[in-house]
Amino acid sequence: MNHDQEPANQKHPRFIVREDAPFNGGPPLDLLAQAHLTPPALFFVRSHGAVPAIDPASYRCLVGGLVERERSFTLADLAALPQADLVATIQCAGNRRSELIEYAPIPNETAWGAEAIGTAVWRGVWLHDLLTAVGLRPGAGHVAFLGLDDVQKDGRHVGFGGSIPLEKALQGGVLLATEMNGQPLSPMHGYPLRVVVPGYIGARSVKWLGAISLQAAPSANYFQASAYRFAPAAPGEAGNNLGFPLGELSITSVICVPEAGARLSAGSAQVVGYAMAGGSRQVAQVELSTDQGRSWHTADMTSADAVGSWCLWRAQLDITNETASIIVRAWDTAANSQPALVEQVWNAKGYMNNAWHRVPVIVAG
Amino acid sequence: MNHDQEPANQKHPRFIVREDAPFNGGPPLDLLAQAHLTPPALFFVRSHGAVPAIDPASYRCLVGGLVERERSFTLADLAALPQADLVATIQCAGNRRSELIEYAPIPNETAWGAEAIGTAVWRGVWLHDLLTAVGLRPGAGHVAFLGLDDVQKDGRHVGFGGSIPLEKALQGGVLLATEMNGQPLSPMHGYPLRVVVPGYIGARSVKWLGAISLQAAPSANYFQASAYRFAPAAPGEAGNNLGFPLGELSITSVICVPEAGARLSAGSAQVVGYAMAGGSRQVAQVELSTDQGRSWHTADMTSADAVGSWCLWRAQLDITNETASIIVRAWDTAANSQPALVEQVWNAKGYMNNAWHRVPVIVAG
Repeated sequence: MNHDQEPANQKHPRFIVREDAPFNGGPPLDLLAQAHLTPPALFFVRSHGAVPAIDPASYRCLVGGLVERERSFTLADLAALPQADLVATIQCAGNRRSELIEYAPIPNETAWGAEAIGTAVWRGVWLHDLLTAVGLRPGAGHVAFLGLDDVQKDGRHVGFGGSIPLEKALQGGVLLATEMNGQPLSPMHGYPLRVVVPGYIGARSVKWLGAISLQAAPSANYFQASAYRFAPAAPGEAGNNLGFPLGELSITSVICVPEAGARLSAGSAQVVGYAMAGGSRQVAQVELSTDQGRSWHTADMTSADAVGSWCLWRAQLDITNETASIIVRAWDTAANSQPALVEQVWNAKGYMNNAWHRVPVIVAG
Repeated sequence: MNHDQEPANQKHPRFIVREDAPFNGGPPLDLLAQAHLTPPALFFVRSHGAVPAIDPASYRCLVGGLVERERSFTLADLAALPQADLVATIQCAGNRRSELIEYAPIPNETAWGAEAIGTAVWRGVWLHDLLTAVGLRPGAGHVAFLGLDDVQKDGRHVGFGGSIPLEKALQGGVLLATEMNGQPLSPMHGYPLRVVVPGYIGARSVKWLGAISLQAAPSANYFQASAYRFAPAAPGEAGNNLGFPLGELSITSVICVPEAGARLSAGSAQVVGYAMAGGSRQVAQVELSTDQGRSWHTADMTSADAVGSWCLWRAQLDITNETASIIVRAWDTAANSQPALVEQVWNAKGYMNNAWHRVPVIVAG
């Protein structure tokens, strides 16, 4: 691995850099919607600290807590376990925060557009197999992950951490990945090992994984206990409401083409985008409106929709001189849909904005 | 069991009978909100045919399809398997349809208020144990249930049927129940055996269970293939949109007290109700508004909230002469919430109405 390479150089020339240090950014939406599997050069990056330089020879993943046999796994130990492939989408809980910020300010949080999402085929070891290898002791209820990165929070140095319920881990489908789209993980995507928790907020897919702890309670790490909590509130009320910890993703959908402010000709126009459900749900239906939500047109899903993975969709819409915007909403298999207005999902830290996605357009006769 | 007893006689004097034959009804909301476990006399009933008279001596539950060993289970066979208790809520997919009907007509469907929901402790045999006993053959993807009732649809006689994905069955938590709240199932609640699928629409919790079939595809029964599909649409468009089959419940919440049109005095008022999440999600937060949704007050959850079970909640609100209505909305642990308006969830058959629940009130100075 080339640890000297600047992260931005590994990305597409049109990659949108939201912050340089720590490095945060994502792809333009038109490129994002071109393929079910997102090329690494377009895959969004969410970092809370610098990319750690990890020596593969001395690397260990420590597994402890409420286990029968504590273990430390070298990369060779991991390679000796059965290897599995998983197509999974990772979406940052802050995706689409910029729309919430337009409604009311959210200080000190990255102003993501709709690009903080991507899909890859990941290869590695099932977390479930690792847990079988160490054995569980009674009382284990959560699987906590801790990264080897160095994040400064409230004046202290911590690794980025988070946890998932043990039940989610035992249901299968959670991967400890060493490869992304057929290549070893790049440094900024978590080399040499990262977690992939399909259907959960990206924050639980901890990168640069250094330790796994089986424990009775959720992780006490800042990024589980304090951040990534959903506190719905009117903008003035933010401080009064601790909210609840985020886990599974809510249903969302986004128009990738045309872009906001695009000039269209009256007539038929192709619209493309993505939709994503969370947990064990799938995207059931994607709908578009050109009349502010009074009537809806069902889109065609153009890429495989599976649990833990997004779908891409396409629709051919009639655009007239009266069309002021195009709106998308989706339904998941539990008949959950999206709120009409960002004010209905506005929350103090700006997470999980899944309001109807609205793209204003200008129609030339 | 007393098969001669009129079903309505087993119910509370204030039980709301929506239809006499087949018998359909539920409790007044003030009584429903009094306890986490719904007394059988208040538990809603959704039937599509007459209650079948079943002789326990000759009763068999047949298990076949893609299994290694077809089996027929007598009640004694079932009693010999390990018995388990499960607290689970059952909610009809048509709960709160009456609010959708007020927006636009939905012909030939029961006009449920918010009473088509109830919670019980069920006792019986895990479906998972039964599947282990028969063994699965490759290709099994769905578990289909068929009832012994006699329903007339499109001129044919069928039993009520439906299916769940095999994955849901294997995750555990699906019960084949013989008892409800410590008593044998009553005839109208499915004696001698019913399915209980927590977190799914009530239609999958098939009563009077006569057969279980492991199969590659979902059930072809009318109530899986044609009914209980969610087709979002503007009222005029109903016929064009087949929609998608329902499974997991969406997040909902309901104000049980005060009732719509109640006269309140200005000052502090207690509001109580229920909230229910679907699938593997739980209710994360319940909020009330007295100003049309501009600001929200977090309610206290007053009964255990667990996967597959509702929670009851309570809030003390300031009521003024300006208060025209009380509104409730809830968030689930995946940060899904409810649409503001019934028109945003209106669908051709009137299922899964989870719009903000609004109770108009009259305030006397």
